Amino acid sequence: MSGVGALGSVEPAFDRFAADVFMKLITSRHNPRVKQAAALRSRKAREASQRTLVYGPRETLRAIEAGARLVEAFVCPPLLRGADSAAAATALRDSGVEVLETSVEVFEKLAYGDRLDGVVSIATTPRRPLEHLLDSHAVGQRPLVAVIEGVEKPGNLGAVLRSADGAGFDAVVVADPVIDLFGPNVIRASTGAVFKPNIAVASSEAAVAWLATLRVPLYATRPDADEEYTAADFSAGCAVILGAESTGLTDVWRREAVRAIGLPMRGVADSLNLSATAAVLFYEAQRQRNEAQR
Amino acid sequence: MSGVGALGSVEPAFDRFAADVFMKLITSRHNPRVKQAAALRSRKAREASQRTLVYGPRETLRAIEAGARLVEAFVCPPLLRGADSAAAATALRDSGVEVLETSVEVFEKLAYGDRLDGVVSIATTPRRPLEHLLDSHAVGQRPLVAVIEGVEKPGNLGAVLRSADGAGFDAVVVADPVIDLFGPNVIRASTGAVFKPNIAVASSEAAVAWLATLRVPLYATRPDADEEYTAADFSAGCAVILGAESTGLTDVWRREAVRAIGLPMRGVADSLNLSATAAVLFYEAQRQRNEAQR
Repeated sequence: MSGVGALGSVEPAFDRFAADVFMKLITSRHNPRVKQAAALRSRKAREASQRTLVYGPRETLRAIEAGARLVEAFVCPPLLRGADSAAAATALRDSGVEVLETSVEVFEKLAYGDRLDGVVSIATTPRRPLEHLLDSHAVGQRPLVAVIEGVEKPGNLGAVLRSADGAGFDAVVVADPVIDLFGPNVIRASTGAVFKPNIAVASSEAAVAWLATLRVPLYATRPDADEEYTAADFSAGCAVILGAESTGLTDVWRREAVRAIGLPMRGVADSLNLSATAAVLFYEAQRQRNEAQR
Repeated sequence: MSGVGALGSVEPAFDRFAADVFMKLITSRHNPRVKQAAALRSRKAREASQRTLVYGPRETLRAIEAGARLVEAFVCPPLLRGADSAAAATALRDSGVEVLETSVEVFEKLAYGDRLDGVVSIATTPRRPLEHLLDSHAVGQRPLVAVIEGVEKPGNLGAVLRSADGAGFDAVVVADPVIDLFGPNVIRASTGAVFKPNIAVASSEAAVAWLATLRVPLYATRPDADEEYTAADFSAGCAVILGAESTGLTDVWRREAVRAIGLPMRGVADSLNLSATAAVLFYEAQRQRNEAQR
């Protein structure tokens, strides 16, 4: 059974892709695999199955590049558009994952009417103990490392991970998380970067102990810090430590080895959005380290 | 009629505040003023009335500081918490705006169950023609100016305005907006900074013409730029020009006077979130200008 007959409005490349790759056309919203996938919107179902949802062609592509293990993908050819869709299609084909074709109606059930861009993938939820980071040699000389403690909003966590990826950070520790690291909105906001193996989950205490072994300066970002971030020396690597949106960092980080820094605030607001703060610090750290290496 | 009788669980400071200031206790969800306020969730209603909604005590406080003209405020004392609430209460009292006290049930209608932190204000929608910016002398010597063209997501626009405020930018032009500059989600994400008078709305063509009068280097951010942002010279002021999330900048910005810059991307992602890109560039511009002024 092929969906090619239903693909009159599809761009030619996707038409060929469909004919080559899709095994099954699902047209029933009650199909058990569709129901199982849709159930992964719930954190409980994700934890029970150790699987999660990746929405979107670009996110699926980046997730594969970052090392995610996909178990299946749903594709709706009439909804595919643009270069990301073509690249995701190729990556799915190359990955050998089972691709199920759906009707628009079925895809809408999967996407909850939210992101109708034609690709939803199911990935195995990776385990991310701090030990993996120690073993992986991800963190070399003069590393740039970030710690994000207790972050509350999936969109912020995802954006922070995306910025750490962009700035070439060696590792990120998600400390004492209250949200699901592999929730769909974290995956989406990180555009898949959350699947990189240089991300770990740990208690704040364990993160402190690990940081001590790195022999880099530790900078905690606090809105009440006396010192501006431009006075920090990131040139020989550093750890940038960020707290929760509403409550900031816990007292675990009030210790002699940790210096508090902040961004100057020259207007009416008393802080930036967490992910904006993270981006400024990550790129300043990268800028300083690169300059020092020249 | 006073709501003091219903305030058993309220912190003492708010109790006194309530007794001093609140004129009316609204307990009916069908109260016409509550209905009118709730209707402002719709862009059409906001445009017809030239009023908009400010959610939250902190946002109300910053909006007042930024120069917003409030017309009324709804406060639900049992929901007020923390320092921001106390400061907002004082600011509302000092502003002389009419404060209406509501029951929790009525407040829930106003907040749509979303932000139950006890303050919703109604503000006049400011007019923001580019001419105001010219007249206001906001833009002095070596100015830092931002242009955001065609931004699609209210949360991104708000975060960009918040970062421009934090970095001390002299002016922001919102070019060819497709979303409502004073929509509740822009106000919220900007924590009220959108009400600052140094923000203008204009066509991209008008923005180009205005920028030419400033005699500062113009930097357009493009993901395909050959030049990294660290090679840009922001020390004598600059204009940073940002495009829409999905489509980037229009061809209006492809001209000799405009140099394309980008952030280095060292991981799997090919760009940062728009508001993260903005924050990095705004703070780098500020850092360079400050260093040059030392």
